Amino acid sequence: MTISELTGALTDPDLLASYRRDEADLCEAGTPLAVLRPTSTEDVVRAVKWAAKFNVPIVPQGARTGLAGGANAIDGCLVLSMTNMNRILEIDRSNRLAVVQPGVVNAVLSRAANAEGLRYPPDPGSWETSTIGGNVATNAGGMCCVKYGVTTEYVLGLEVVLADGRVMRTGRRTPKGVAGYDLTRLFVGSEGTLGIITEITLALKPAGSEPLTLVAVFPSTAAAGDAVDRIFTAGLAPSLLELLDQVHLNAIEDYRPMGLDTSAKAILLAAADADLDAIAAQCQTAGAIDIWQATDATEAAELLQARRVAHPAMEKLAMTMFEHGGLIIDDIAVPRTRLAELLDEIEAIALKHGVTVGVVGHAGDGNLHPNIVVDRTDPGSVHKGHLVFDEIMERGLAMGGTCTGEHGVGLLKRDWLAAEAGPVSIEVQRAIKTALDPANLLNPGKVFSLT
Amino acid sequence: MTISELTGALTDPDLLASYRRDEADLCEAGTPLAVLRPTSTEDVVRAVKWAAKFNVPIVPQGARTGLAGGANAIDGCLVLSMTNMNRILEIDRSNRLAVVQPGVVNAVLSRAANAEGLRYPPDPGSWETSTIGGNVATNAGGMCCVKYGVTTEYVLGLEVVLADGRVMRTGRRTPKGVAGYDLTRLFVGSEGTLGIITEITLALKPAGSEPLTLVAVFPSTAAAGDAVDRIFTAGLAPSLLELLDQVHLNAIEDYRPMGLDTSAKAILLAAADADLDAIAAQCQTAGAIDIWQATDATEAAELLQARRVAHPAMEKLAMTMFEHGGLIIDDIAVPRTRLAELLDEIEAIALKHGVTVGVVGHAGDGNLHPNIVVDRTDPGSVHKGHLVFDEIMERGLAMGGTCTGEHGVGLLKRDWLAAEAGPVSIEVQRAIKTALDPANLLNPGKVFSLT
Repeated sequence: MTISELTGALTDPDLLASYRRDEADLCEAGTPLAVLRPTSTEDVVRAVKWAAKFNVPIVPQGARTGLAGGANAIDGCLVLSMTNMNRILEIDRSNRLAVVQPGVVNAVLSRAANAEGLRYPPDPGSWETSTIGGNVATNAGGMCCVKYGVTTEYVLGLEVVLADGRVMRTGRRTPKGVAGYDLTRLFVGSEGTLGIITEITLALKPAGSEPLTLVAVFPSTAAAGDAVDRIFTAGLAPSLLELLDQVHLNAIEDYRPMGLDTSAKAILLAAADADLDAIAAQCQTAGAIDIWQATDATEAAELLQARRVAHPAMEKLAMTMFEHGGLIIDDIAVPRTRLAELLDEIEAIALKHGVTVGVVGHAGDGNLHPNIVVDRTDPGSVHKGHLVFDEIMERGLAMGGTCTGEHGVGLLKRDWLAAEAGPVSIEVQRAIKTALDPANLLNPGKVFSLT
Repeated sequence: MTISELTGALTDPDLLASYRRDEADLCEAGTPLAVLRPTSTEDVVRAVKWAAKFNVPIVPQGARTGLAGGANAIDGCLVLSMTNMNRILEIDRSNRLAVVQPGVVNAVLSRAANAEGLRYPPDPGSWETSTIGGNVATNAGGMCCVKYGVTTEYVLGLEVVLADGRVMRTGRRTPKGVAGYDLTRLFVGSEGTLGIITEITLALKPAGSEPLTLVAVFPSTAAAGDAVDRIFTAGLAPSLLELLDQVHLNAIEDYRPMGLDTSAKAILLAAADADLDAIAAQCQTAGAIDIWQATDATEAAELLQARRVAHPAMEKLAMTMFEHGGLIIDDIAVPRTRLAELLDEIEAIALKHGVTVGVVGHAGDGNLHPNIVVDRTDPGSVHKGHLVFDEIMERGLAMGGTCTGEHGVGLLKRDWLAAEAGPVSIEVQRAIKTALDPANLLNPGKVFSLT
């Protein structure tokens, strides 16, 4: 192994340690042999060829804000950190598209699009720090996806460096196109296992107006779930429909007091371009005990702030409960009509195991993030946390759900993917992986286990 | 070869002849060995296993309304005609989804969705006869795709019979999901080369209101193209934006007199939920000489009728010009801003070769269908037609376009796909094809040539 053959490779042990993992708590992570921060496609080609020559696995990384361990290092791997490839190459206002390098931060692109009267809708919770490359690799979701769809709906084309160093372009710059297999969408969400993305062509939307926002307070999580069901059955089209449970309301009030009603069992936050009164009416019918509508953009932004701080608030709660408190974050999605039932089940499972579980999520998409609080220094607590995780998963899949609505499979969900997709699908996915990466050097062990 | 081993196989020569081809004119077509019309997934499994045993290629067919030869028979093949698998298995109003067999006709599903207050947007020209299975296999487009997207945006999941008879389920019933590779979208648009689709789960939208409609008349095709550019640069969102050139205006008036202004060089038809006045203003600025707005749904439907009869009107024109007149139908898409330029180029190319070319298309998507009129009994005429086709293609690709916006590759565009996608992409597509269908029995020779 001649790391010296790879110009620019960084091997300082402290630096290597800082590239070990993404934000998924309690996931295994190795120590890289080296980190390379390419600034061009040619750098990536060079790295991939080097890795192929010496049989070194490659783990591509963006901002490492992922929540499934997909960007975690493997012992002895080469980490390709893409954050230095951070140029917006083009924003084409008339054709409503952008061409970017993978290291561009979501918020940076969003603001640049806004400046042209356009909008890049996908808004994962990490949007202020996560990269477009990472968003594409995980097919990231977000709050506005209930109306505007997830990352893959916006990816028109890619430049990808394949496992053997060949450079491939996929897709197009035209609004429509059906020339050949949809390789673009095969790579979106493939978590770095099929190739290294070096350029991304994205569709943009007209900026649109600021939507109106409301908060509805419910006496039970099931009533909140029922409201979601009613809103969609009535044909309404919220651009945001988020749920926070009582655990979150308390955690957020402790973290940053906002005057939330902590006696409520759940609240729904909704936004809509029109329809907001009709959404309020459905919440009322479902049993909301209080509904409060923002009167201007400032108030609307304040309402959303409660949702935005949900994750740090839960982290603080975990650390208040245990000196080494941590969170196992789930990402289950069920058909919308099963939401109320899933919420009840999660509460029952948490109660049974005596574990604190806070539920937040994109209710309009049937996508919940149960946050399971554990003491990471107590194997019994961690074990119980995993039991809760598994039981929630089992119930969700039995309801026709999926094991990951937007976070991806990474390391965390490999067994659940296998259970959900079934053996034939896994065989086909592995066959595609093998066809494109026969030596299994691209992010090996992610999505599928190695054996 | 023991065709008797395949219960239900039809071998009557007249019947076989009727299954030879889709609606792509002047495309090669073979004669099947047999036709099977399965009524269940099990029938398809049986057929695929039989074909694998005797090394017989399989050509799946829907309504054979395709325009690229993708469903054309190969000599000695087994045709799997999916039109008897035509049950709508489920429409779930609250979760906004439908589960259908592949032989369900688009219009049948559309009407069934409407009855539930929902809508299945993709509306290819053939929507009254084409099947959802065919729409999915070709990733069909249509008129409302400019706002609502093409077929692939609506496919949540599939059941597929693979080349060796294994049955695979892809995707999900939840609004969001990122569990594993996006096999669903790999199969959408793969034109029957990767597996036989036996069930489709589709997302539906709320029905929405009937949009308002206008027609704008232009003194030049370039002015019409300029109007399209202006409409999008201004951030407007038409739900339909169609172009008809003078050749079409004349052909339609001859076919079914509607009082169209045949002295116009081009017209744009636009529909929008809001924004229609703003769209009219942009047409005015671009030099429209007349703009006429429908005042009710009946008038709006009449306007669209002109667009709906474009294809039969051009067929009639071809047969008026030549006793054995035919059409070579192209399906090029360019970035919207290049539309005016492409229209001018098409006119110049047609003039240079002395060939009649009528242009119609989804202008809002930059997607044009040049219809090249040829005398099919005159090799010189057909040759000139192909020259025109190739020159239009060359110009479109040089503008950053794609060789097929919505019709697919089939037989007609294989060389152009190779030119557009480049060798690495073709190698990867072939590697995926080989991984899934090593004996190359599923619709061989479509998308890629055999050698």
